[in-house]
Amino acid sequence: MTTAAVSGIEAMNVACMGAGTIGRAWAIVFARAGCRVRVYDVSAAALDGAARSVMDTLAVLVPDNADAAAIASRVSYHDDLREAVSGADYIQESVTEDLQAKQEFFELLDRLAQPDALIASSTSQLAPSQFMHTASHPERCLVAHPVNPPYLIPVVELCASPWTSGEALRRAEGILTAAGMAPVRVRKEIRGFLLNRLQAAVLGEALHLIDQGYCGVGDIERVMTDGLALRWAFLGPLTTGHLNAAGGYREYMGKFREALRQMTGDLHVNHAWSPQIFDAIADELERRIPAAEVPAAQRWRDRTIVELRSFLDRRKEVRR
Amino acid sequence: MTTAAVSGIEAMNVACMGAGTIGRAWAIVFARAGCRVRVYDVSAAALDGAARSVMDTLAVLVPDNADAAAIASRVSYHDDLREAVSGADYIQESVTEDLQAKQEFFELLDRLAQPDALIASSTSQLAPSQFMHTASHPERCLVAHPVNPPYLIPVVELCASPWTSGEALRRAEGILTAAGMAPVRVRKEIRGFLLNRLQAAVLGEALHLIDQGYCGVGDIERVMTDGLALRWAFLGPLTTGHLNAAGGYREYMGKFREALRQMTGDLHVNHAWSPQIFDAIADELERRIPAAEVPAAQRWRDRTIVELRSFLDRRKEVRR
Repeated sequence: MTTAAVSGIEAMNVACMGAGTIGRAWAIVFARAGCRVRVYDVSAAALDGAARSVMDTLAVLVPDNADAAAIASRVSYHDDLREAVSGADYIQESVTEDLQAKQEFFELLDRLAQPDALIASSTSQLAPSQFMHTASHPERCLVAHPVNPPYLIPVVELCASPWTSGEALRRAEGILTAAGMAPVRVRKEIRGFLLNRLQAAVLGEALHLIDQGYCGVGDIERVMTDGLALRWAFLGPLTTGHLNAAGGYREYMGKFREALRQMTGDLHVNHAWSPQIFDAIADELERRIPAAEVPAAQRWRDRTIVELRSFLDRRKEVRR
Repeated sequence: MTTAAVSGIEAMNVACMGAGTIGRAWAIVFARAGCRVRVYDVSAAALDGAARSVMDTLAVLVPDNADAAAIASRVSYHDDLREAVSGADYIQESVTEDLQAKQEFFELLDRLAQPDALIASSTSQLAPSQFMHTASHPERCLVAHPVNPPYLIPVVELCASPWTSGEALRRAEGILTAAGMAPVRVRKEIRGFLLNRLQAAVLGEALHLIDQGYCGVGDIERVMTDGLALRWAFLGPLTTGHLNAAGGYREYMGKFREALRQMTGDLHVNHAWSPQIFDAIADELERRIPAAEVPAAQRWRDRTIVELRSFLDRRKEVRR
């Protein structure tokens, strides 16, 4: 790992471009780390919504009211782009996932940003080489793709364009680490980066199994929560194999390799879904959590993730 | 869910066939639930090993020494098959994964077992129709495929052969639930059942990404432990989507469906691995956990799973 240490993250100025779900969540990440954060959006309504949402989220996230207020006070909201970007050391772009819009916005940001500012895009769909080439200084532009919401899920995927400098990558990695994130480097552009590809592999095969009548929704959920994820929550899928034999991964794969080969050859992750499959799954999920109860369930989920991370951190300490 | 309630699991007699890793682990599951358990193996050394391993495992698993001793005292070890099977209400077969061996053993078990005994196989590789057809009473034979070790991971996959009766399935489901397991029904035979297919989808795509230089071992691990599994530990992959939009799964898939289609079409779960990939991964995993430290790491893993399950059960109570 070549993470440059960033001391004094709290002295940094961060600009969050776009006040939607992702932009406002990034504002919390950086303000919580002590940065001054300017949130920009063209829409005054979006900015108002973001300000309310930041307060509400911090009330759930931060037990002490005074601490929550101090964090919120570090975030300001701007409908003037020049003002929002002025003095920013790090710019996180989270505007709409439209190629043309991203390209124009990156050109503009690149022109307005101070010379040594980093400019990172939250895109989950677009490859950096598609929209960073028209910037005058593409060497300081990169993708930093978060999982929603980044104030709960630490993984952030860094992906360089062909023009991104190694120094920019290292600086972004250092800043995001100092802000409490867990950066992962994607070494070459690929659709969906890493996380969404692994997720799609599970979803694709799950949809195949449900669609072809091998199992129901609840069976997939149980196989994950009462099976696979009891290890994956603290051991990755490869370390899981490493601990599956007394001699480690080499011994384990010696035995398991052939079965894995046969199974991967038999998967149908790209199965052509029946048109009604998503409605059928939604019906079943709504029997378990009615649509009207989703917001309450989301708050329970967020609180559970906070406590789960603190539980897992304590268990990692035990092994060290 | 049509789980028949099983009162008086502690009055049941269980026979575990085969004293290897899986057979001895099953003995712990049933003895912990209060059953009397007979473990059978042809090898006296395997039986000795099982007896020691059951004691050692219970010492880690059960904090109170007297409780652990009481559980261990319910397990007896037998090299006489007739004696082991005699009086058994439920027989769990965990002998070697060889089609011929399984078929002959099932014929024999079926002949020796009392008329109303259930006979379940732990097979992970073989379809029940391949080896249950020569039994005289195939209607009481089924697959009950555990995840290793079943005393830690509750999922067990039930799969009927074409001849298994619905009543046998329901009884097995009830018994395993009463023994603390989380049975999942696989409705039609399929290679790898459900859990190993979802696991293979993740491993297949992860091996592709590492092999093609998109990322390293640590990146895959981080994407899982600091990303995907922070939700999957308590929400299945479909419920995760249900809570990703305020309106639930229907709203979420309305937006996400096209991206998922593109991504599943771009996966390479069946990528042809380089010959050296497993050694390269083993090298990296051993840098993190040396082979000699694997047994200690396994104890830490097992303790962590016990505590994680108790943490997650408390969080589920909060939502109820």
